[in-house]
Amino acid sequence: MSGFKGRDVISILDFTRSELEELFEYTDIIATRGVQSKPLEGKIMALAFFEPSTRTRMSFESAMKRLGGDTIGFTSEEATSIAKGESFIDTIRMLDSYSDIIVVRHKYDGAAKLAAEIAENPVINAGDGKQHHPTQAMLDLYTIRTVEGAIDGLTIGVLGDLKYGRAASSFILALTHYKPKKVYLISPPQLKPRREVIDIIREKGLPYKEEEKIEEVISEIDILYVTRIQKERFPDPEEYEKVKGSYKVTLDLIQRKAKKTIKILHPLPKTEEIDPRIDETQHATYYKQAKLGTPLRQALILKILQ
Amino acid sequence: MSGFKGRDVISILDFTRSELEELFEYTDIIATRGVQSKPLEGKIMALAFFEPSTRTRMSFESAMKRLGGDTIGFTSEEATSIAKGESFIDTIRMLDSYSDIIVVRHKYDGAAKLAAEIAENPVINAGDGKQHHPTQAMLDLYTIRTVEGAIDGLTIGVLGDLKYGRAASSFILALTHYKPKKVYLISPPQLKPRREVIDIIREKGLPYKEEEKIEEVISEIDILYVTRIQKERFPDPEEYEKVKGSYKVTLDLIQRKAKKTIKILHPLPKTEEIDPRIDETQHATYYKQAKLGTPLRQALILKILQ
Amino acid sequence: MSGFKGRDVISILDFTRSELEELFEYTDIIATRGVQSKPLEGKIMALAFFEPSTRTRMSFESAMKRLGGDTIGFTSEEATSIAKGESFIDTIRMLDSYSDIIVVRHKYDGAAKLAAEIAENPVINAGDGKQHHPTQAMLDLYTIRTVEGAIDGLTIGVLGDLKYGRAASSFILALTHYKPKKVYLISPPQLKPRREVIDIIREKGLPYKEEEKIEEVISEIDILYVTRIQKERFPDPEEYEKVKGSYKVTLDLIQRKAKKTIKILHPLPKTEEIDPRIDETQHATYYKQAKLGTPLRQALILKILQ
Repeated sequence: MSGFKGRDVISILDFTRSELEELFEYTDIIATRGVQSKPLEGKIMALAFFEPSTRTRMSFESAMKRLGGDTIGFTSEEATSIAKGESFIDTIRMLDSYSDIIVVRHKYDGAAKLAAEIAENPVINAGDGKQHHPTQAMLDLYTIRTVEGAIDGLTIGVLGDLKYGRAASSFILALTHYKPKKVYLISPPQLKPRREVIDIIREKGLPYKEEEKIEEVISEIDILYVTRIQKERFPDPEEYEKVKGSYKVTLDLIQRKAKKTIKILHPLPKTEEIDPRIDETQHATYYKQAKLGTPLRQALILKILQ
Repeated sequence: MSGFKGRDVISILDFTRSELEELFEYTDIIATRGVQSKPLEGKIMALAFFEPSTRTRMSFESAMKRLGGDTIGFTSEEATSIAKGESFIDTIRMLDSYSDIIVVRHKYDGAAKLAAEIAENPVINAGDGKQHHPTQAMLDLYTIRTVEGAIDGLTIGVLGDLKYGRAASSFILALTHYKPKKVYLISPPQLKPRREVIDIIREKGLPYKEEEKIEEVISEIDILYVTRIQKERFPDPEEYEKVKGSYKVTLDLIQRKAKKTIKILHPLPKTEEIDPRIDETQHATYYKQAKLGTPLRQALILKILQ
Repeated sequence: MSGFKGRDVISILDFTRSELEELFEYTDIIATRGVQSKPLEGKIMALAFFEPSTRTRMSFESAMKRLGGDTIGFTSEEATSIAKGESFIDTIRMLDSYSDIIVVRHKYDGAAKLAAEIAENPVINAGDGKQHHPTQAMLDLYTIRTVEGAIDGLTIGVLGDLKYGRAASSFILALTHYKPKKVYLISPPQLKPRREVIDIIREKGLPYKEEEKIEEVISEIDILYVTRIQKERFPDPEEYEKVKGSYKVTLDLIQRKAKKTIKILHPLPKTEEIDPRIDETQHATYYKQAKLGTPLRQALILKILQ
């Protein structure tokens, strides 16, 4: 598989490093110069959001509309009524006949792959199940490349729910395309990465180490990727209360123990896991990361549809 | 009434055969060559969906946006809050002042007609009450014309809920513009066509026959139009269980008893009424039918607005 | 502060009379000649509706799309899930990174101002809290100017809920930019204008008088601005039943006691407060007012973004 034209985007693992570099270079051009004409005039993107995600949806919408295209689709509220009785396969076939590209969000692993098998038009996975969210992973890599110049050689920490969080899993898998110095996977024991993720990164030779306490490795980290820990993941609320403090990134921790140049990423939305006072510091890279989502997705859509 | 410019689309009966042919020839052009420029640039379609219908809504949206226009509107969830206290008449007046064409979906018969009387701009009925869904009927006729070359001379079966299903009623009424050899109206006794529909097709001389069992007429049929039978229509669930088997189109029935050339249409969404193994056969025409919805509606909108 | 380019629109008080006149003259041009090219091609408006408002939302959407731009955003139903855990500040930052201009609707006073402080792009207040709805006020002034030629010298009545209704408050504040002959503020005692509004109009020298009965002043009024009285505002339903009759504008009242030239405005939606038979008379100006919303907002957006 090579080249972007007409291609499905299901997992970050389907892309090679050189393909990602090609995408990032094109994103650089769009981010700095914008798009001249309306290259996707008359083209329609179908947004099939079986699960809610306002941020990802709006980022795709903004990208498509800035390119002169337009969108149709449904949000998770309507998805219930759509699904009523109709098979997922029929829903995808219908969207396929109304549009030129389909963006799928679904709670089950494999939903985007199945959609890609049915649809004649390209399918982009906007997050399905617990593992894949490839455009988020592309954006994460691109953000690091933008602020650090390179990904190779960095020490990267991934903090939070590494078991159920698809943004975290996708990011960890994405790092296997590069040569970071070290990757710390920091989570409570209950939320360690799943076996299938560990198997892949081990096989690919990613220099990772699982950790339970951010304090012990914070001093080495260049890039800290933070994700949310959801209370609902803990069968016993008391257990959550016990661990939650260890996974909060406080201003004190950053100022006292981290490198002065540490950059903090987050797929957003964030809640309590990052001290809001960090928002105003030069460490906060998550707003820049969100902002880069539009040009990154513009570049990807253009490469697929043009 | 003649010509499409500025015209309301309320019932399939308002159009003549030659007007329909004119529309279908224009649809052929759009379906094959597409649209060159953006003919409806700056034009706005208001989607007034007082009742949910994701498919019809997205088909209209896709058509309008591919023509360079755009849409505003509300879905049934918001309709509740819109309706709160405000009269239907005021809602239509408001939409009329924000847009160039209004598409109405409503559960009450006559809603689209009333909207057309109020609005200065053209109104398209996207389904109201139990009887009218004119653009679906146009699409159904156009699909048959596309796959069979003509509608005259065919034997056509209409299967399912012929009493409450507006797609089926509209299709039956639409056939009065043509000269099929025979039309079988196949339904459980409780779901036979309403008196007002029968009166019209009798007066127009449509060669129809009411049937209760698909098995007895399947061998003659060229086009089988299937619609869903909703459990909720039966006061007694047991009664539904008794009849439902007779209104399922199975692969076995088609392979053993039907013409090899039979084509199956369905307005979608479908659930259990068609054996999913039929989807993969050359008989399944419903996906093609759905796909033709966009060019058909593009042609109609262009003829009205240009 | 002067000039519209890049400007936030938070309160009608932030604008000078000459700026409003400049806006109205530009609106005249758009309302009569339309917009030639697609001046906002590729530009995105984010609609952040934390509170429902289909009418205002569609008016902004229609305006933006007629200018060649497009919109993204969320409605109040989705707002709940967006807000879940995420701060208002982060939501605004995200929208700011996906769009070129943000339109905010919120139930709390000051929300739009806060958004404007956070966002790099311009923010338009589409109604926040109990007091400010500047684009509605601009539209109200523009409508009067259109139908009467001028605002100075008129006798204006404002009827209804003057305490909680933000459209009424904004309109009253807007009048301080002009020199009406007299302004009657007509409401039940419980729904009189708030102290902060009275303080401003007194300071600005607006010749106002508070009234409780429309009958006593109707004969003097040139422009009657009617707003809805919501039952929920009354702690005791009986109290509501007692007063509601006094705040209904009946055809009888208008025909027997009002000037023949009286014009009735309403921000819509209206329910029982205006006799529907008035809709058909030359007094009903509210549909024209709604219709002028699109060109007024087109003019405003163009002045800010171009």
